[in-house]
Amino acid sequence: MSTYGKIFRVTTYGESHCASVGAIIDGCPPRDEKDLVHLQSGTERGVTLGTPIGLLVKNEDQRPHDYSETDLYPRPSHADYTYLEKYGIKASSGGGRSSARETIGLLGSFFPLRSYALRLSKPGRVAAGAIAEKYLKLAYGIEIVAFVSSVGKIHLPSFVTSPSGEDDDEAQDALSEEFRHLIKTITREEVDKFSTRCPHPETSERMTQRIIRAKDAQDSIGGTVTCVIRNVPSGLGEPVFDKFEARLAHAMLSIPATKAFEIGSGFKGTEVPGSKHNDAFVRRADGKLGTVTNWSGGIQGGITNGEDIYFRIGFKSPATISQGQKTAQYDGTPGELAARGRHDPCVVPRAVPIVEAMAAIVVLDQLLIQNSRKTAANLLPVLTGLPPSMVQPKSPGV
Amino acid sequence: MSTYGKIFRVTTYGESHCASVGAIIDGCPPRDEKDLVHLQSGTERGVTLGTPIGLLVKNEDQRPHDYSETDLYPRPSHADYTYLEKYGIKASSGGGRSSARETIGLLGSFFPLRSYALRLSKPGRVAAGAIAEKYLKLAYGIEIVAFVSSVGKIHLPSFVTSPSGEDDDEAQDALSEEFRHLIKTITREEVDKFSTRCPHPETSERMTQRIIRAKDAQDSIGGTVTCVIRNVPSGLGEPVFDKFEARLAHAMLSIPATKAFEIGSGFKGTEVPGSKHNDAFVRRADGKLGTVTNWSGGIQGGITNGEDIYFRIGFKSPATISQGQKTAQYDGTPGELAARGRHDPCVVPRAVPIVEAMAAIVVLDQLLIQNSRKTAANLLPVLTGLPPSMVQPKSPGV
Amino acid sequence: MSTYGKIFRVTTYGESHCASVGAIIDGCPPRDEKDLVHLQSGTERGVTLGTPIGLLVKNEDQRPHDYSETDLYPRPSHADYTYLEKYGIKASSGGGRSSARETIGLLGSFFPLRSYALRLSKPGRVAAGAIAEKYLKLAYGIEIVAFVSSVGKIHLPSFVTSPSGEDDDEAQDALSEEFRHLIKTITREEVDKFSTRCPHPETSERMTQRIIRAKDAQDSIGGTVTCVIRNVPSGLGEPVFDKFEARLAHAMLSIPATKAFEIGSGFKGTEVPGSKHNDAFVRRADGKLGTVTNWSGGIQGGITNGEDIYFRIGFKSPATISQGQKTAQYDGTPGELAARGRHDPCVVPRAVPIVEAMAAIVVLDQLLIQNSRKTAANLLPVLTGLPPSMVQPKSPGV
Amino acid sequence: MSTYGKIFRVTTYGESHCASVGAIIDGCPPRDEKDLVHLQSGTERGVTLGTPIGLLVKNEDQRPHDYSETDLYPRPSHADYTYLEKYGIKASSGGGRSSARETIGLLGSFFPLRSYALRLSKPGRVAAGAIAEKYLKLAYGIEIVAFVSSVGKIHLPSFVTSPSGEDDDEAQDALSEEFRHLIKTITREEVDKFSTRCPHPETSERMTQRIIRAKDAQDSIGGTVTCVIRNVPSGLGEPVFDKFEARLAHAMLSIPATKAFEIGSGFKGTEVPGSKHNDAFVRRADGKLGTVTNWSGGIQGGITNGEDIYFRIGFKSPATISQGQKTAQYDGTPGELAARGRHDPCVVPRAVPIVEAMAAIVVLDQLLIQNSRKTAANLLPVLTGLPPSMVQPKSPGV
Repeated sequence: MSTYGKIFRVTTYGESHCASVGAIIDGCPPRDEKDLVHLQSGTERGVTLGTPIGLLVKNEDQRPHDYSETDLYPRPSHADYTYLEKYGIKASSGGGRSSARETIGLLGSFFPLRSYALRLSKPGRVAAGAIAEKYLKLAYGIEIVAFVSSVGKIHLPSFVTSPSGEDDDEAQDALSEEFRHLIKTITREEVDKFSTRCPHPETSERMTQRIIRAKDAQDSIGGTVTCVIRNVPSGLGEPVFDKFEARLAHAMLSIPATKAFEIGSGFKGTEVPGSKHNDAFVRRADGKLGTVTNWSGGIQGGITNGEDIYFRIGFKSPATISQGQKTAQYDGTPGELAARGRHDPCVVPRAVPIVEAMAAIVVLDQLLIQNSRKTAANLLPVLTGLPPSMVQPKSPGV
Repeated sequence: MSTYGKIFRVTTYGESHCASVGAIIDGCPPRDEKDLVHLQSGTERGVTLGTPIGLLVKNEDQRPHDYSETDLYPRPSHADYTYLEKYGIKASSGGGRSSARETIGLLGSFFPLRSYALRLSKPGRVAAGAIAEKYLKLAYGIEIVAFVSSVGKIHLPSFVTSPSGEDDDEAQDALSEEFRHLIKTITREEVDKFSTRCPHPETSERMTQRIIRAKDAQDSIGGTVTCVIRNVPSGLGEPVFDKFEARLAHAMLSIPATKAFEIGSGFKGTEVPGSKHNDAFVRRADGKLGTVTNWSGGIQGGITNGEDIYFRIGFKSPATISQGQKTAQYDGTPGELAARGRHDPCVVPRAVPIVEAMAAIVVLDQLLIQNSRKTAANLLPVLTGLPPSMVQPKSPGV
Repeated sequence: MSTYGKIFRVTTYGESHCASVGAIIDGCPPRDEKDLVHLQSGTERGVTLGTPIGLLVKNEDQRPHDYSETDLYPRPSHADYTYLEKYGIKASSGGGRSSARETIGLLGSFFPLRSYALRLSKPGRVAAGAIAEKYLKLAYGIEIVAFVSSVGKIHLPSFVTSPSGEDDDEAQDALSEEFRHLIKTITREEVDKFSTRCPHPETSERMTQRIIRAKDAQDSIGGTVTCVIRNVPSGLGEPVFDKFEARLAHAMLSIPATKAFEIGSGFKGTEVPGSKHNDAFVRRADGKLGTVTNWSGGIQGGITNGEDIYFRIGFKSPATISQGQKTAQYDGTPGELAARGRHDPCVVPRAVPIVEAMAAIVVLDQLLIQNSRKTAANLLPVLTGLPPSMVQPKSPGV
Repeated sequence: MSTYGKIFRVTTYGESHCASVGAIIDGCPPRDEKDLVHLQSGTERGVTLGTPIGLLVKNEDQRPHDYSETDLYPRPSHADYTYLEKYGIKASSGGGRSSARETIGLLGSFFPLRSYALRLSKPGRVAAGAIAEKYLKLAYGIEIVAFVSSVGKIHLPSFVTSPSGEDDDEAQDALSEEFRHLIKTITREEVDKFSTRCPHPETSERMTQRIIRAKDAQDSIGGTVTCVIRNVPSGLGEPVFDKFEARLAHAMLSIPATKAFEIGSGFKGTEVPGSKHNDAFVRRADGKLGTVTNWSGGIQGGITNGEDIYFRIGFKSPATISQGQKTAQYDGTPGELAARGRHDPCVVPRAVPIVEAMAAIVVLDQLLIQNSRKTAANLLPVLTGLPPSMVQPKSPGV
């Protein structure tokens, strides 16, 4: 329930205003993990021991109860009502482990609280994912970079559409050259140069204006985050119920306020005919097979093929807004609820490190599972006498 | 790996051309389940016993090896290459448990093979999901209906956009009245009247033409399936890593050829300001709280709120096409691969019962988990002395 | 790995000398849990919220490294060597999360450290199990009591053997009347009156002498703990791989220093012929079926039958002893290792609350799983038309 | 529930008289597995593909209902009553997936039915475990041999007791030289020479007489099975809740009719002082560390140390006996139940291959988990600058 992963496992606890928020990381490969803060166990002299790592973040924003206004109202599109329905009880201060401002219940465990307070300035990388990321970088050179790809209707340009001569229904879309280059080269340093975390100056500026308009209107606005994972080995992911993209979608939709996920060409890809959408194979410089295009987003049949993995996540507009909202009280009485204080009109830029952290957790867990098989298979004698359709003897990838 | 669920658990086996495909269903509530075929255990006199139900489907299309053409080529956007990378070996006849035509490896276990052969005509409902569906209908009146919402660029009309006076970036989208009515009332019988499974005559006709064009071009085309689940109790789903929508996304992206998932307003919802996107509460006729709009798609904070759950899944264009494709052989040699025989240019209509089956499995599993908590909590004395912000004494929903 | 349970789940962290030891409890039924210390989340005003409960115990015995003597030697029958083999690295101060004195890594998370320091005097009940115990007592009246049943060769009298006239091989054993009475009536208060936690004055006194002899000899001695669980509903436990006794054995053998487990008649029961060993049914005062004898220990076919559950666990003699031991250094050099300081010669009395805590965790988790089925089945219409061999219409227990 | 294992996973189905019994094996390392019967999927040309292996055993003893006598009586110490309590319904023919003769529900899935029918003659090795065993043998040279160590009170001689001069309470036990030799050298071929599967001629003869006496008395008798696993690498097993012995106990107590488990010195070891019980280290011929004695049974701190693993399991006397038994009907009416037909008075010899199969499944699953960590750690640069107490630089075992 509050645990993610099969071998690399993260278990979290914490509500918005409790004593602390924290996590236990189990199954971390032992070795070098210096400079991580708030560690309770599982490390010595900056080196992980392989045993569970206890992470603790003190909740400096611990308040017994200051939401008197919402005592009567379940906040619309928050989790106040659903938690009450689920448990028959809820924390006095809000919806508990979820929804809008309370997201700190989850975020905090990954997210040094200091960074959360800093908001749009450069936050530290998320703790639990940071351990996974560090391992992936060190052992495989895996790079994970996320960025903001839209705020409201302001989209970072990515697709180009060529009208088809015959029929509008067959106008053809393709990833723009510019976007493909971005996917291949973008770094966290470049992303973090922009307060919007959208690494496209003109679009970033328009996003900033859009966020200001939302703020001025005491309103909020959502957006999307695109993430790319480079240098993932082929062979990760399990057939059927644990396909790589299925576990990735699961992890991403466990981030508060997410409503949508697409891998590779995603929804747009449903409109592209197979003859265009198929990723033809080609021999790469290193002798292995690669693909000319990458509509698949690095995954075929639920298993990674070694190409870049990229995906996009949709975050809804924050439910907490300053303007008054006509709604009903818990007992059904109609009325108007007005949130007090100032609220962040757009949380998408702050979601970027969370997306990267969850991606790292998914990749490491799948990698550890595949490692167990790969190592097991390698201990057996080489198979002989099989037809080439089963084991391609000349295949450079086997 | 090949198991889905925590309490209601489905484990499957089978490749495209093996002796049989099958599944074991564990954790099924005992009782009435007549008229299901291919049962090996767990039932007697048409009644389930609570013990594991063994389902078996003979693979009538069992062929030792007839894909000689693909012995040299990994088929583009198939799983031939990735399975070989993962396991160092693969079934001679294809990508094993995944990808395009081989999907029978998964589908077959749910899907009486006869129905698969019948293709676009009325297939029987999927076996494993059928057991879950039957329970949900009988015990809770839960209805699950999926339908085709797009084929290529032909979309069933759903959103209406009202241009905003001030700024194009704030043009507002809303679900059309027609679409909202469809979600509330659509039945399987209506869906199955259309060979496309799109219950909108005009759109269905355009889809049919689009599929014919794909076929004539020896090409293929993808599409989307929308699914609605009605009468789900509030309180299902677990905070953090097992949010209802996270497990739903996981299940849907385990269906072959899926690339995208969105719940409720989805990606479109990221463009709608919070003031419009928030679902205000209102007292329903039965005295409980409901919401005026339903952008949330029946889920808030990862937990169901009792409103209709609706979501959309994107299926890529089938990778198997009849026209020749320039690609590389396993050893990297460039060449042209041509698939033999006739291939289905659009599989989306056939995916409809699979989506419904997987949805039923997710709902039942979450329901059983919540049952265990609910029953446990009900055995304790009523809590007294708590402030109204923790337990709303007048709340009609507690 | 570091998580136990399917619905009621405990995840722990901590080594012997790290900053803190702790646990996360997930899946706890919400409601009244006052007076628990060290809670970080998941409660408010002494009431659990259903969300994960974070428990934290500061490690007051945190020492960077003071075991210089053992730097050269892997301590015999400790985990120094095996942890190093497993992870390629270990905490400098010992075997990490396991073995002898370091057991605090596990115990601490359940066990307020203060109590651990108090040792043989009355320790507080173990925290994680305490929450489970409290629920079980409140909702079902379930009682869990463990006691020391042997220290070395000093056994609390339990079996009586009647020589058979014909053949020594058929001499018959039976639980003594005195022991059966003890099982039915023993309370924690009675157990805690004895520093040995053996509630039989004469035996307790002999055990005390035995422990003193071990101490005087700079040696150590093991023993057994017997545990009884009363008032468990029938129907808990799952067929095949999650039999009640299988999960109980798993939980008990996860306690450090355990080497053996037996349920009901255990090893002795293998010597008793079926005609004597079978537990005949009888109508109980409440109209339900009970059994005359209880060799089964309350479990038949892996499922509880409503009778008292009792089992016994063997704890080896502590590996840490003060006398010198001839052994080898890490590099194979022979030598003599002498532990410094004073060591507890017998840990069995201190294991009693751990056994009770683990038992509570197992029962609650199985109860929650069965609740989900039971509730699900109860929502369906009553089955009719089945032969009496499938549903016994007159059965008082259905 | 009906699934065992984390990476190597076995899921079973089947009751006593259903259409077939079967299993799905998931996570099997791909490669050579010829000569296995009843395979439905996951293999081609005698080679496993890495994908799930479907095993099927037709139930030739499928009878709709012939137990009319037991329609009125829940059989004592069977699972008739507990299954009815659990599910509110049961298979007409018995207790379903468990208990005495019905054990075929579990056994069948491992056990080609033909072998089961042959009973005490040489059955084939158990199918699911056979796949695991074959891999373990081929890749690691791991040998798993089980044998009958007692029938009723007839025990294969193993311990010798030397009276202590001072005090009877300190008389010392040790494994006999003969028994230690047996553990080191016993093979399946030697075991299978004896119909009792006890590889000690004199004891075997006494056991045979004991079984005949039970049969003549229309009674039954239990016994114990001892199992040794040789050549297991060090480092298997996980700290805390997944200790190697905890998962082994779990697996063994999931075999029907088991009541007790002990690893290494077991219950006897609780009586041996630490100074004798500790396994001193010594440099082995291959330069690695070994232990002089092996009271630990190859496991320390829950993790394997490379020495032989040995353990013992207790099987109760079969509940099905031919003599009449005074008991109660389902409705509480007292009466006498007499089983019809002939029944096997002692099932312990037939349990031997089941024990071996379950042991293989546990070892392979733990091996795959450790592989994933080991491989992950090996990809990182060698750690430098750590004190010798953390990484022993001269340790031959790292």
